[in-house]
Amino acid sequence: MKTALTASVSESVNQQRALVESLFDQLEQSSRDEPGVTRAPYGPDETFAHGIMKACAENLGLEIRSDAAANTYMTLPGSDRTRAPIITGSHLDSVAHGGNFDGAAGVVAGLAAIAAIKRMGLTPTRDITVMGVRAEESVWFQVSYIGSRGALGALPDGALDVTRVDTGRSLADHIAECGGDTDALRRGERYLDPARIHAFLEVHIEQAPSLVEAGVPVGLCIGIPGNFRYPNARILGRYDHVGTPRRFRHDAMMAGAEIAMALDRIWEENENAGRPMAVTFGRFHTDTAVHGMTTVPGEFHFSLDVRAYAPKVLTEVEAQFHTAIKVIEQRLGVKFELGPRAEAGVGEVSPRILSGLDAAANALGVPTMRLGSPASHDAAAFAKAGVPMAMLFVRNENGSHNPDEAMEIDDFMKAVSILTQWLVDETCNAGAPIAS
Amino acid sequence: MKTALTASVSESVNQQRALVESLFDQLEQSSRDEPGVTRAPYGPDETFAHGIMKACAENLGLEIRSDAAANTYMTLPGSDRTRAPIITGSHLDSVAHGGNFDGAAGVVAGLAAIAAIKRMGLTPTRDITVMGVRAEESVWFQVSYIGSRGALGALPDGALDVTRVDTGRSLADHIAECGGDTDALRRGERYLDPARIHAFLEVHIEQAPSLVEAGVPVGLCIGIPGNFRYPNARILGRYDHVGTPRRFRHDAMMAGAEIAMALDRIWEENENAGRPMAVTFGRFHTDTAVHGMTTVPGEFHFSLDVRAYAPKVLTEVEAQFHTAIKVIEQRLGVKFELGPRAEAGVGEVSPRILSGLDAAANALGVPTMRLGSPASHDAAAFAKAGVPMAMLFVRNENGSHNPDEAMEIDDFMKAVSILTQWLVDETCNAGAPIAS
Repeated sequence: MKTALTASVSESVNQQRALVESLFDQLEQSSRDEPGVTRAPYGPDETFAHGIMKACAENLGLEIRSDAAANTYMTLPGSDRTRAPIITGSHLDSVAHGGNFDGAAGVVAGLAAIAAIKRMGLTPTRDITVMGVRAEESVWFQVSYIGSRGALGALPDGALDVTRVDTGRSLADHIAECGGDTDALRRGERYLDPARIHAFLEVHIEQAPSLVEAGVPVGLCIGIPGNFRYPNARILGRYDHVGTPRRFRHDAMMAGAEIAMALDRIWEENENAGRPMAVTFGRFHTDTAVHGMTTVPGEFHFSLDVRAYAPKVLTEVEAQFHTAIKVIEQRLGVKFELGPRAEAGVGEVSPRILSGLDAAANALGVPTMRLGSPASHDAAAFAKAGVPMAMLFVRNENGSHNPDEAMEIDDFMKAVSILTQWLVDETCNAGAPIAS
Repeated sequence: MKTALTASVSESVNQQRALVESLFDQLEQSSRDEPGVTRAPYGPDETFAHGIMKACAENLGLEIRSDAAANTYMTLPGSDRTRAPIITGSHLDSVAHGGNFDGAAGVVAGLAAIAAIKRMGLTPTRDITVMGVRAEESVWFQVSYIGSRGALGALPDGALDVTRVDTGRSLADHIAECGGDTDALRRGERYLDPARIHAFLEVHIEQAPSLVEAGVPVGLCIGIPGNFRYPNARILGRYDHVGTPRRFRHDAMMAGAEIAMALDRIWEENENAGRPMAVTFGRFHTDTAVHGMTTVPGEFHFSLDVRAYAPKVLTEVEAQFHTAIKVIEQRLGVKFELGPRAEAGVGEVSPRILSGLDAAANALGVPTMRLGSPASHDAAAFAKAGVPMAMLFVRNENGSHNPDEAMEIDDFMKAVSILTQWLVDETCNAGAPIAS
């Protein structure tokens, strides 16, 4: 049952369609890099994207600020500016030859929501800030959430000195070039105090076609997976002649195949038990400098990323991983050297915001489903800092990180309407409680 | 029970120990390339090795010739030179940083056997030729048995135009530089007529420590494996974000791990059923140009070598391989592109020579065991051409194709004594039948 308010939200949001399309078009044209788009973090295309958003914010009369990490903040002032603001947004960088919507959709959604609220003539009780986040994609500097963690004073030690994998230039150089303040970042100064943020909401395209599969336009995130990672593991066996009989081999490559299949079985078992997770061996290879068709591989390299929504699942799977290694080591006479280990905690969604989003969607008559985020997002950095967090996913056919992402603007507008309804419910005195 | 003749063979062979050690020393010193030795085919070190053998042959008063492929023939003339000769020998090239004995031991064994026969004052009824074979190792030009197949007029089409993988220079250039006649090779002229070879015998270090394991100094080869190969296969899946759920993935790398484990199971089953074979994925890798820790691999590359001693096993395993591929393709939504296929027939050992070697070893009191050759050898080229063939393996601890090969000269001398005894039995009128 739509109330007058929800009807008004729907109408006001739908009137932002031209704005939305214009923003996506400008983004696409300014960062086109066939196939797809490229907006390297702290590169000119990303900076230009921030400029597009700022120009829109200026038209909307928003306050515009930036921080030491060169993130952009575009704020609709609330009636009580002492109250902790709501932040909504996402990142404006992309992978190389990625899609136009990944990240950027969250910034466009925030601006469209504010435009709708303004159009409705409402003034929020607290600030609503759209955040254009820098440098979320980890492929460039091998560090994730640079912008959001920079804002929260939570960059890992040494992060500023890492270099971009392709250019070899340091992150600090890149940030300084974009007008950031690397000294402040080095001192760990934070622009955002997590205790002074009422909520962080991120709209993002879905990254696996779960919504497509289910025929639902919008997903309500139930959590961002935590992970454990071994970026540079290797297996040491013995190089041998191609004819070496089975019992004499210490085949590092077969050990690799076996640990992969072992984790694949563990994954399948967890899936079947309703405990979603994912296993990825992104790099998985014999030593290309010395391997050959007639040599039994004596060395094997792999990277491993295991992610799940429950800390317990991660702990159990990692233990099973180590047990499987021991069995393989003993049977094949090889040695695993796992190298450095990294991990990220599970990003928990605020139950209160989630039920608010549920209510908003129901009021608007927008079908949604609950969805675990397959991937990590800036929202996880906020959740880790203690900020109540939630995410909305928009149906998208072909995954992300590629130029074939296919989000319908109709679906996107539905997500914007839920975001807007929630913002109105949460911050506008005019907003009556939604009838359930 | 040793007869007077076998006692004489033992004594004469043992008197060649200094010659044998000197030849191995000269080889090692002239081709040292720490770690190990390098005698690249049709390179100066290989040519120098041929020179060492020729100098020894000259001292023994042998006839020395070479052919269009620059192989070396060192012949002890028989009393009836119209009879088909016996050829014994092996290759003098090596892999990079390989071991000193691989290949060369077979040439040294032939020279030592002839020296022993001469010392005994025997004249064979037919020529006995020691052949120093060129270019057996396929790592350099990706073509195997260049020397032996060149001698037999059986080089594959286009072989002369292949280039050495590291230098890019053509095989024809290399052969011409060593005094070969590439025009003759291109015309397919043969120096050796298979119908006019009485037998080909090759002594070689063992390439898997089967004799070490069994505590036996010499192995009698029961066959050289045939193989089928897919040198450049690939699997096409889809690159996806690291968080992509299981049911949406087309993970090319998991398909690779799965086909590897499938063949490993097939291998294990055959081993358990007493049907020896070997499976090697020498190259097995994600695409190093684009792979990354947070990307599900959309492409995977592998080389496959499957070898066995029975054509039936090869046929069955290849059929099982194709069946496994179909199952994986269907389940994971990936596509295998196997690329070019190569094969080599099984190299069958002459039962008559094998029983003769058995008898010789028994007469000499040298313990032997029957052994499938793990690897391919020049002897296989002779067998394929229809020449009765046999091989003797010498116990060797650490495999071949590496600098740690560890053959004891005592064991080697035992193999030489068996070879010598067989040559005497086969060709010397003075040789009475061995009492069994």
